[in-house]
Amino acid sequence: MIIRFERNGKIKHGWTVAEDQKVRVIEGDIYKQLTAKPIMTGLELPLSEVSMLSPCTPSKVVCIGVNYKDHAAEVGLELPKEPLMFLKPSTAVIGSGEEIVYPKLTENLHYEGELAVVIKKVAKNVKAEEAEDYILGFTCALDVTARDLQFQDGQWTRAKSFDTFCPLGPAIAPKLDYQDLRIVTRVNGEIRQDSNTNQMVFGIPRLIEAVTEVMTLLPGDVILTGTPAGVGSVQPGDEISVTIEGIGTLTNRVVSES
Amino acid sequence: MIIRFERNGKIKHGWTVAEDQKVRVIEGDIYKQLTAKPIMTGLELPLSEVSMLSPCTPSKVVCIGVNYKDHAAEVGLELPKEPLMFLKPSTAVIGSGEEIVYPKLTENLHYEGELAVVIKKVAKNVKAEEAEDYILGFTCALDVTARDLQFQDGQWTRAKSFDTFCPLGPAIAPKLDYQDLRIVTRVNGEIRQDSNTNQMVFGIPRLIEAVTEVMTLLPGDVILTGTPAGVGSVQPGDEISVTIEGIGTLTNRVVSES
Repeated sequence: MIIRFERNGKIKHGWTVAEDQKVRVIEGDIYKQLTAKPIMTGLELPLSEVSMLSPCTPSKVVCIGVNYKDHAAEVGLELPKEPLMFLKPSTAVIGSGEEIVYPKLTENLHYEGELAVVIKKVAKNVKAEEAEDYILGFTCALDVTARDLQFQDGQWTRAKSFDTFCPLGPAIAPKLDYQDLRIVTRVNGEIRQDSNTNQMVFGIPRLIEAVTEVMTLLPGDVILTGTPAGVGSVQPGDEISVTIEGIGTLTNRVVSES
Repeated sequence: MIIRFERNGKIKHGWTVAEDQKVRVIEGDIYKQLTAKPIMTGLELPLSEVSMLSPCTPSKVVCIGVNYKDHAAEVGLELPKEPLMFLKPSTAVIGSGEEIVYPKLTENLHYEGELAVVIKKVAKNVKAEEAEDYILGFTCALDVTARDLQFQDGQWTRAKSFDTFCPLGPAIAPKLDYQDLRIVTRVNGEIRQDSNTNQMVFGIPRLIEAVTEVMTLLPGDVILTGTPAGVGSVQPGDEISVTIEGIGTLTNRVVSES
């Protein structure tokens, strides 16, 4: 799996394998080099000696609303006829282990655990049949949402665009059976969302098609594929985690805005 | 005024003065160098020998909806109590003279002429009283909108995020009395919008305060401050221009998606 990390003030990408507590360092631009296998430097570091960062630095994060059947039923919304898009800015992205800041402007902060797709190369007008060629891999995401502002504004942008409102990580898994993955969100260790990506209304190839019919996706850009049933609120001090089969666990603690 | 241009395959910034048909070339990072006056290289080029580009390359474009009293009255919307935000992605930005692509997905493409604010330095939690310190300058913008998709989706993102849907330019004017500027949008030379920035519901300092209460703005990021009355549709072949007092004219032709 691909990680991004900092060590001695330098940011690098690395490759880890399951149950291997080491990082194999990748040099250069992973988006240019990653064909079948990444080009390795030969350097290996213990995972414990590096600071993990968000595994990619998207220029934009495109989110899909109401894309799980169980979540649509839970909130009483009709299934959308086409993928419903909104954006989070790049400034909202943080990595696993970083803190989600509970803004003063909200009184109802919600978690939404999601599967994120990371784009490998420039993508415009991509057909669903060819969409897999444009996927670098998959990671866990939280679409943190100020639920009160979302309803108050009508437009969802402000509610979902605060700094720290887009945790991504811990790693990018390049190959996954993305149509059948268990996705679990926990708050302080207690399960709150427990679903499967087979509940998606629009599958990932269709999402890539629909998004790239509108806008060009750049290497490292991310699509958040929607959240399953079980959304709910958190408080400062709570720890949220999203675990997706084959990827791992994204963990972030909520803190008050100082 | 500050422009961005290409010449012999290189992209640079330059400085022009009113009625001067020359560009004085600026070297390096204008966001670091521009204090009172930009640092010049001494090199001057005729304006006719350079290809103008969008004057900045925002990481994000934050747009404000329903921010002119005359436009709110025209569309029968209540004045918002707080600035209503939505985002356009960086991939939507083009410069003056570039083509707006009329997407196959829409049958009702609208122009919305707007004053754009370009941010000078990293801005978070900026108070309205200090907001002017964070402004690099002002330019003209078009918030191109697929009006049918805007109403169909409810969320405005898709309707406003197509590639080429954010023309910016032609130049950044660093100093302007931004509270009292005539703003005129023309289609094929005919006036369609003719208003003044004194019609804004929320002034620019308050917009910077409200946006940076949510997200960090980066150097070169842009706020589109809303459109006045007179929005309407265009067809392939039409030429749209936005003229703002003290800045100049942004001109873009609409073409069919091939």
